[in-house]
Amino acid sequence: MATPKTILVLTTGGTIDKQYFDALSAYQITDSVVTKLLEAGRVRHPYQGAEILRKDSLDITDADRAKIVAHVAGATQSGIVITHGTDTMTLTAQALAQIPGKTIVLTGALAPARFSESDAAFNLGMAFATAQTAAPGVYIAINGSVFRGDEVVKNRELGCFVLRQDR
Amino acid sequence: MATPKTILVLTTGGTIDKQYFDALSAYQITDSVVTKLLEAGRVRHPYQGAEILRKDSLDITDADRAKIVAHVAGATQSGIVITHGTDTMTLTAQALAQIPGKTIVLTGALAPARFSESDAAFNLGMAFATAQTAAPGVYIAINGSVFRGDEVVKNRELGCFVLRQDR
Amino acid sequence: MATPKTILVLTTGGTIDKQYFDALSAYQITDSVVTKLLEAGRVRHPYQGAEILRKDSLDITDADRAKIVAHVAGATQSGIVITHGTDTMTLTAQALAQIPGKTIVLTGALAPARFSESDAAFNLGMAFATAQTAAPGVYIAINGSVFRGDEVVKNRELGCFVLRQDR
Amino acid sequence: MATPKTILVLTTGGTIDKQYFDALSAYQITDSVVTKLLEAGRVRHPYQGAEILRKDSLDITDADRAKIVAHVAGATQSGIVITHGTDTMTLTAQALAQIPGKTIVLTGALAPARFSESDAAFNLGMAFATAQTAAPGVYIAINGSVFRGDEVVKNRELGCFVLRQDR
Repeated sequence: MATPKTILVLTTGGTIDKQYFDALSAYQITDSVVTKLLEAGRVRHPYQGAEILRKDSLDITDADRAKIVAHVAGATQSGIVITHGTDTMTLTAQALAQIPGKTIVLTGALAPARFSESDAAFNLGMAFATAQTAAPGVYIAINGSVFRGDEVVKNRELGCFVLRQDR
Repeated sequence: MATPKTILVLTTGGTIDKQYFDALSAYQITDSVVTKLLEAGRVRHPYQGAEILRKDSLDITDADRAKIVAHVAGATQSGIVITHGTDTMTLTAQALAQIPGKTIVLTGALAPARFSESDAAFNLGMAFATAQTAAPGVYIAINGSVFRGDEVVKNRELGCFVLRQDR
Repeated sequence: MATPKTILVLTTGGTIDKQYFDALSAYQITDSVVTKLLEAGRVRHPYQGAEILRKDSLDITDADRAKIVAHVAGATQSGIVITHGTDTMTLTAQALAQIPGKTIVLTGALAPARFSESDAAFNLGMAFATAQTAAPGVYIAINGSVFRGDEVVKNRELGCFVLRQDR
Repeated sequence: MATPKTILVLTTGGTIDKQYFDALSAYQITDSVVTKLLEAGRVRHPYQGAEILRKDSLDITDADRAKIVAHVAGATQSGIVITHGTDTMTLTAQALAQIPGKTIVLTGALAPARFSESDAAFNLGMAFATAQTAAPGVYIAINGSVFRGDEVVKNRELGCFVLRQDR
């Protein structure tokens, strides 16, 4: 850890980036709040950010997923944080499982980061730490847990992630 | 990770818990906000909390530090998060280094958690993840980095932590 | 003003009370946040609250409007604050214009109060003050202005209220 | 109200503008947050702002007070909002009482505006509305009430303003 390694932060949309537009009586996914969250977190660890998608995760297609995988596989960084809608986060985790030698952490939020009560900052903190400390593999950091990407599912009714056997 | 292990969360005070009291024109350390931060973070991972101290870390004595060490050494949990003032966080990290077999993560905040722009939630998220993913040892999670407890110092002028060689 | 008069605070829904539910990928109007806003505002002025409706103002019917008018007309208080969706706020203002001897102030928000950047607290403060200081009549307090209820329209594209002649 | 009159907004410091600096373990009064509060309030009413002082109100001298009075007396605007520390707000109200023909509203906050739970936005909203709707005179807008400047005192123990007879 002596020389901190740059973390790659990819954004793909999801609830974390939802904003409410009164003129439309609707929420939409906007410019990612991730940079603001990292500033509020007073992050001085080197990182590099890129927007891959700006979508509700229910709208992410196979082609979109291939794009995420290609971006991660081609990255020079070994610690990767991906913000992502929660509904299909496990599908993207599955697609990323083929990439060796990288610590890939998916996270997101169940309440928009623009809410004064949101899990966004906490979750992004978890992901940032996991990218630095966990062994290579794919992880989902949410609800206070660092899950392996293949051991968890979202329970939509409860609005949280649970272990597969607890479903 | 299949059966999540309970994390022990100890609070000792510090800026993270500072509240402003107009009647005194002063801030004071109050009831810890850690529980509120974990609720906002929608944490469902099992944890157990205890208040050890409620002090500015400049006021933490050797006896206080011994109390923290005793509490951690005697705990049944192996993943430990400690919120702590930043000014003497490295001294407490040093005192905890003697404890084997536990992943101990110190964190805190440079702005009170009650501020709308605070690093508290992000830092607590980092600590929570590190307690689950890092090898046994003592860590300091702050400024977006998971540092080993003995490799870092606080630079009071810059208001951040830096590696010892960067001092 | 020597003996403060109790203000009646009626809630009808609208953007001010919108909450986001991840399980539905949707926002909904929930329990009003007005009480929380008044607590955060450290209000010690006597007030009494009641929920009349819990609707997006586009869904408010003539019967709903008659219910609001009846409630205000029958109230013993002379200072009335009504939180209301902005899209049909002027229609309700018009319906209330027939009530003599009361200072009736409609307000709401263009961003949900649960957002960390919302106009809700500022607007509610305006309404609370107007109910105490303005002559009997119907007012709309929004965008930093206290408008007469009949001089203003919402410009949906701009997301703000403008004077009728500025339309 | 047909053509909105520009409101003059003067800042003098006080708790509303307090920021916490970890490097000093202290709070200090900084650049006023008033502009940010007016933006969050989506204010489109014309206003003009000026910083007169940047002081805890316990440190405001007679000369400072004379400066505030001179600025208000010389202003072309008739609606004036002044943000001010609460401890000597009534003294400044008294000094301003000599100025005829203007609606002058003092406000402030009991918790810094940078706190996520602060009365700052609500109070500023009250002051903004009072400057538009109240008869000429000096007012203090706080704790949900619009007080006449001479009828109220701060109760430091309770951390709120009360009518003189309630002291």
